[in-house]
Amino acid sequence: MAELAPGDTVGILGGGQLGRMLAVAAAKLGLRTHVFCPDPDSPAFAVAAQATCASYEDEDALERFAAGVAVVTYEFENVPAGTAARLSAARPLFPPSRALEVTQDRLLEKRLAASLGLGTAPFRPVDGVQDLAPALREAGTPALLKTRRFGYDGKGQARIDALNEAEPAFEAIGRQPAILESFVTFAAEISVVAARGRNGAFAAYDPVRNEHAGGILRRSTVPAGMEAEVAAAAIEAARAIGESLDFVGVFCAEFFVIAEREGARVLVNEIAPRVHNSGHWTLEACAVSQFEQHIRAVAGWPLGSPARHSDAVMENLIGDDVLAWPALLSEPGASLHVYGKREARPGRKMGHVTRLSARG
Amino acid sequence: MAELAPGDTVGILGGGQLGRMLAVAAAKLGLRTHVFCPDPDSPAFAVAAQATCASYEDEDALERFAAGVAVVTYEFENVPAGTAARLSAARPLFPPSRALEVTQDRLLEKRLAASLGLGTAPFRPVDGVQDLAPALREAGTPALLKTRRFGYDGKGQARIDALNEAEPAFEAIGRQPAILESFVTFAAEISVVAARGRNGAFAAYDPVRNEHAGGILRRSTVPAGMEAEVAAAAIEAARAIGESLDFVGVFCAEFFVIAEREGARVLVNEIAPRVHNSGHWTLEACAVSQFEQHIRAVAGWPLGSPARHSDAVMENLIGDDVLAWPALLSEPGASLHVYGKREARPGRKMGHVTRLSARG
Repeated sequence: MAELAPGDTVGILGGGQLGRMLAVAAAKLGLRTHVFCPDPDSPAFAVAAQATCASYEDEDALERFAAGVAVVTYEFENVPAGTAARLSAARPLFPPSRALEVTQDRLLEKRLAASLGLGTAPFRPVDGVQDLAPALREAGTPALLKTRRFGYDGKGQARIDALNEAEPAFEAIGRQPAILESFVTFAAEISVVAARGRNGAFAAYDPVRNEHAGGILRRSTVPAGMEAEVAAAAIEAARAIGESLDFVGVFCAEFFVIAEREGARVLVNEIAPRVHNSGHWTLEACAVSQFEQHIRAVAGWPLGSPARHSDAVMENLIGDDVLAWPALLSEPGASLHVYGKREARPGRKMGHVTRLSARG
Repeated sequence: MAELAPGDTVGILGGGQLGRMLAVAAAKLGLRTHVFCPDPDSPAFAVAAQATCASYEDEDALERFAAGVAVVTYEFENVPAGTAARLSAARPLFPPSRALEVTQDRLLEKRLAASLGLGTAPFRPVDGVQDLAPALREAGTPALLKTRRFGYDGKGQARIDALNEAEPAFEAIGRQPAILESFVTFAAEISVVAARGRNGAFAAYDPVRNEHAGGILRRSTVPAGMEAEVAAAAIEAARAIGESLDFVGVFCAEFFVIAEREGARVLVNEIAPRVHNSGHWTLEACAVSQFEQHIRAVAGWPLGSPARHSDAVMENLIGDDVLAWPALLSEPGASLHVYGKREARPGRKMGHVTRLSARG
């Protein structure tokens, strides 16, 4: 499979802020981009050489898109399987379809982690109402019921504190195939943004400590302030996950850090087969950002060093937070990103700001 | 004059690498861009929300362009006066027309510097053949004959070592109005990339030491390794120039550093009314790059801090230099930029690479 050369076109499925920052990273390296997204207001269209606004089920549009690009990648994990199959028949698709299959499904994701000997929160599949009571008996309460598919930013989740809350919770998540997870008391949430090249090379950025509110990432801090063994365990887990998926591109593994008498350990929480919000700080703090790293990987180019020259804190601007842009522009040392979305709906990621400081 | 808000459109005249990096900087802040350039292969088209490929004399195209943008700026100093006049009648044009007028003309530029009490190389106007001999008698040899207008990257210049070379030199530069400059022996060339806001705020990046070859910038290094007084004098000269032009946006003042018995001093060499090659290192080494700084200024927004967190060396990739891209991708810590130009002609700036190091 040929490596790309400057001047070639990268096809990107999805036109949100991640697609936008991927397109800019591709341009930095002299590559052209073609963004495919059904949303006419896609922020990524504004920085792409070409744009197609069509449904992911539009076979003609997909065919034309594939014909004009050297490689296809995506900014979101919910690429329909049929879309991925159609595109990968025509052009190299990175990350590969299997990475999508597994990470689209919480159950497959958890089973993968378990098969690699990596800890997870205890989980049971819930295929229908009949599975709720037995699963809860084993998991205990409180527990979290999560749809197997299409969950993000805390969507598709419901907490269960008692047996009589189980059916309403199943109702709340839309009576979909789900998993029930035991509630885990964690000391911290961390993530590892890492990349695998076409040749199997692996590069991980330093683990990041994440703070969420309402299921949405608010703040990422690097260094994460963990013991070195915890950071190393998280990176090794990410490496194992990447290898098992034959991954090509950037992905993010999120972990719970559990404090135990014999020391802290990490449990795999989620895997995102794409660039990730908790890696935005790499734009300012590293010579090669997660976006450029992803483009390098899917282009068949060498991965960049993930070393960071500075400490960093990234804060999301969610909904009306973005109205603070004038103050953020005035803050010395703050790097503001505004995604160009038309409407600042509550819970919507509108931008972010990164603050660097000298390495501690 | 209204300040812009995210979602507004910045019009950019010129579609080269500077326009490309300006467009990306605007997108980072949530602004849309419309790039106007007569060259269908303009690298900036690939990262702009809108593109117009038309002549700078095309009145209809200029009118449509102006109608859809909130402010107009440019990436090159040779914007025709008529184009600037037409656009500034319709929309705010930054930097203002007078900055263009002065910096398009070496004679006006030199006279401005002199009027501010800033040193320059001794110069005489040469309007025709009849001026050559008297000018050379005063300037001595060697001397440099430079066209008043449309010179860049060493073009439009000829060296004169003896009187009988004067007419051939005048021929070589196209028998245009020119200035004759005394040859100055300098210890170093430095530049100051600085910005002025609409409110007169001034912010200068640290002075940079520049190395040229064949009239083209090869390498910029920051810090410049000058005595603090020299750096301060250069920054103060830039401030005076910016104020005298009522400048809005980023500009670059280039200086010769002259070693004299009583200490070093700076002579103004050239003023570029735009973002500048010797400021590319700010993309990696500062929270706010020269490109973002320019967008902030023309948008009427607060200037960012010009502080740098790292030392930096920027090297241009000229012509076939860009063929080294695979090796540069493999070099840890190197940040590669490829401009997306179709053809690597000799002398053409195809990309650059920046290497950071911890502040010395």
